[in-house]
Amino acid sequence: MTSIGIIGAGVAGLHLGLHLRQQDLDVTIYTNRTAEQVRDGKIMNSVAHMSATIDIERELGIADWPDIDAEYSKHYHYNGWGEERRFEGSFEKPARILDYRIYLPHLMGEFERRGGRLTIQDLTVAEIEQLTDVHDLVVVSTGKGEIGALFPRREDKSPYTSPQRKLAVGFWKGVAPREPRGVEISIVPPAGELLVLPMWSFSGPVHALLFESLPGGPQEVLTDRRYEEDPAAYRELVLQILREFHPTVFERVDEAAFELQNGALDILQGAVTPVLREDFVLLPNGKYLLALGDVHMTVDPVQAQGANSAAYSAKVVADAISEDHVFDERFMRKVARRRAERLEAASDWVNTIIQTPPAPQMPQLLTEMVRNQALADRYTENFNYPIRQIDLLATPERAAAAIADTSNR
Amino acid sequence: MTSIGIIGAGVAGLHLGLHLRQQDLDVTIYTNRTAEQVRDGKIMNSVAHMSATIDIERELGIADWPDIDAEYSKHYHYNGWGEERRFEGSFEKPARILDYRIYLPHLMGEFERRGGRLTIQDLTVAEIEQLTDVHDLVVVSTGKGEIGALFPRREDKSPYTSPQRKLAVGFWKGVAPREPRGVEISIVPPAGELLVLPMWSFSGPVHALLFESLPGGPQEVLTDRRYEEDPAAYRELVLQILREFHPTVFERVDEAAFELQNGALDILQGAVTPVLREDFVLLPNGKYLLALGDVHMTVDPVQAQGANSAAYSAKVVADAISEDHVFDERFMRKVARRRAERLEAASDWVNTIIQTPPAPQMPQLLTEMVRNQALADRYTENFNYPIRQIDLLATPERAAAAIADTSNR
Repeated sequence: MTSIGIIGAGVAGLHLGLHLRQQDLDVTIYTNRTAEQVRDGKIMNSVAHMSATIDIERELGIADWPDIDAEYSKHYHYNGWGEERRFEGSFEKPARILDYRIYLPHLMGEFERRGGRLTIQDLTVAEIEQLTDVHDLVVVSTGKGEIGALFPRREDKSPYTSPQRKLAVGFWKGVAPREPRGVEISIVPPAGELLVLPMWSFSGPVHALLFESLPGGPQEVLTDRRYEEDPAAYRELVLQILREFHPTVFERVDEAAFELQNGALDILQGAVTPVLREDFVLLPNGKYLLALGDVHMTVDPVQAQGANSAAYSAKVVADAISEDHVFDERFMRKVARRRAERLEAASDWVNTIIQTPPAPQMPQLLTEMVRNQALADRYTENFNYPIRQIDLLATPERAAAAIADTSNR
Repeated sequence: MTSIGIIGAGVAGLHLGLHLRQQDLDVTIYTNRTAEQVRDGKIMNSVAHMSATIDIERELGIADWPDIDAEYSKHYHYNGWGEERRFEGSFEKPARILDYRIYLPHLMGEFERRGGRLTIQDLTVAEIEQLTDVHDLVVVSTGKGEIGALFPRREDKSPYTSPQRKLAVGFWKGVAPREPRGVEISIVPPAGELLVLPMWSFSGPVHALLFESLPGGPQEVLTDRRYEEDPAAYRELVLQILREFHPTVFERVDEAAFELQNGALDILQGAVTPVLREDFVLLPNGKYLLALGDVHMTVDPVQAQGANSAAYSAKVVADAISEDHVFDERFMRKVARRRAERLEAASDWVNTIIQTPPAPQMPQLLTEMVRNQALADRYTENFNYPIRQIDLLATPERAAAAIADTSNR
């Protein structure tokens, strides 16, 4: 039986593992943390699954979450560039945000229940290379530093060599939900963005506050100041930033109830350098490693495209495997070609959004959306469709065409 | 309204025109021949439409041909390499061969009936370039010499600089059909191939005999000897070649009735140099020309992939236009990327088939098919799916994997 090894038990690796179990293949996922360790650990991110991703989850039989109320169907915008600053857009089908400390352990359990093998082991690059003698195909979906560097950076699609935002995300109680439920996107130059994400966690509904701060701007202190050093002072700092820069979020805060759901476990501070890497690498033994998920493409989280891209990419890889078990260069190039359009679209889109100074069409588009509901809805729905989104905003000419097209409706 | 100009009224140009009329766009097709001239002219080719192409025709509302009985569902092989030489493969859904002197004029009429503009005009390169000021997008689907040369040859995907087969195709009466109806593929090294295609023409059912002759081999005389110089002698020559090299075809011939359906109009002698060209070219005025059909990709007709690839390519272009009317470099690259996998697969496949000496896996595969029905059926059905076909036969390792996979069933 064809045997596949997957490095990493994030959304990419677990989705791929579940797809391949549906094909009844021999699948092993290697990860350095047990489901319990993931569940009891610190938050890793705040991840919105668009309906396009939920459609994939439905195919995998992991879309149903009884007792969990985590769907939303709106984007509420506060556009710091305009005169009239508020607008909203609607999704055609709801998206969902679930704490990955609930989501990933559930998928790990499902994977094992369906006959997948989960091996808890920290792997070196040398050990990963040795796995190509054990499995017919080895897919690398997580791994920092040396492991990621196995796959050369694609200079043509990686415009940044340092993070464009400093990140601070916490899961907070005491923020009133918007009705209908939705993600709020507050863009305030020169501070950066704040995303307020309604989500489901251990205590039920909470809100992720994801501060995307411009380096050198007034908001980056939320990344630089370590929460653990003085939790109370950090909380005050968050309130102060909300009050000063994000009025439509601040008005939702009940200060008496405003606190992290679970202290230091529920906050993550850091930054990512966006990168798109080569799809595969040829090893000295003549075998290939295939890149997936964060190892292949890292995007800033500001447009929620990381996990959705990873789920898409896992499906492309699974579909390719379903029709072809010869893991030669032709197979690798097939996977690369099939996922390139959508992944590059997501990467280009997010990299356009985080550009400094802003790409000229972005303020123009967002200001237009205040009075052009069709454009606002299209921009929102396109969070499911990165190709359509980059079609819409790649250049000033394309933005103008989208404005003209939606104005005529 | 967005305006599209299409150069050429072959299957590629007409399919694209019909797709775009379904999108209610302003479409003009430029061609140098009227429908009547096409109908009354010499044969241009012998074209099998696979069921995948008929599915596209169904979308276009041109799949129904009442009063015409032109479907077939089999490939009958005579494999000149083996001991046991005969085998057959089945299609899941029938294919169809219709005289293009019936097919194309019908599509031209439909295109005009549906509001398309048909302009009868011979265009120079300069005139084509000027059309980019008249239309938002100009697509070039036919044109020899200077026009084709607008699009640079892709050296990485164009292994040949001269024809690998000499061609002679005639529409003959007096050949008994096979039951169930099917195309016969007689491969006789070192003569080359003979394809016997059951088709519908003006007089009803006839057979196209497509001689694919190795240059320097005993069959090339059918291309070099001009039919018009001595029709009776040419007919004798065909019979002699059939008798000597293609026994399973010769046994189907009723010599008393064996003649071209309509004399010199029903025979075509020539050769093609396979080539894959760049998808688009940027003109000095900042506009692009997009290549389609034969201008983009020319394949030897031996695997019936030219028209089927052109129909596929036209659909990709139409789908791209349906979602995006900004005809910039991004649009061109999008089209190029979306059609690349299938078109390169078809081109690579046909170029593998016509390789001299034969690619080692081809005799191996065909000999295996004599006793492996699953492989023969897969190889046959894959005439609809070039990607699967090149997956099957690209390398000796892939051929071995396909043999192993089908042997286990």
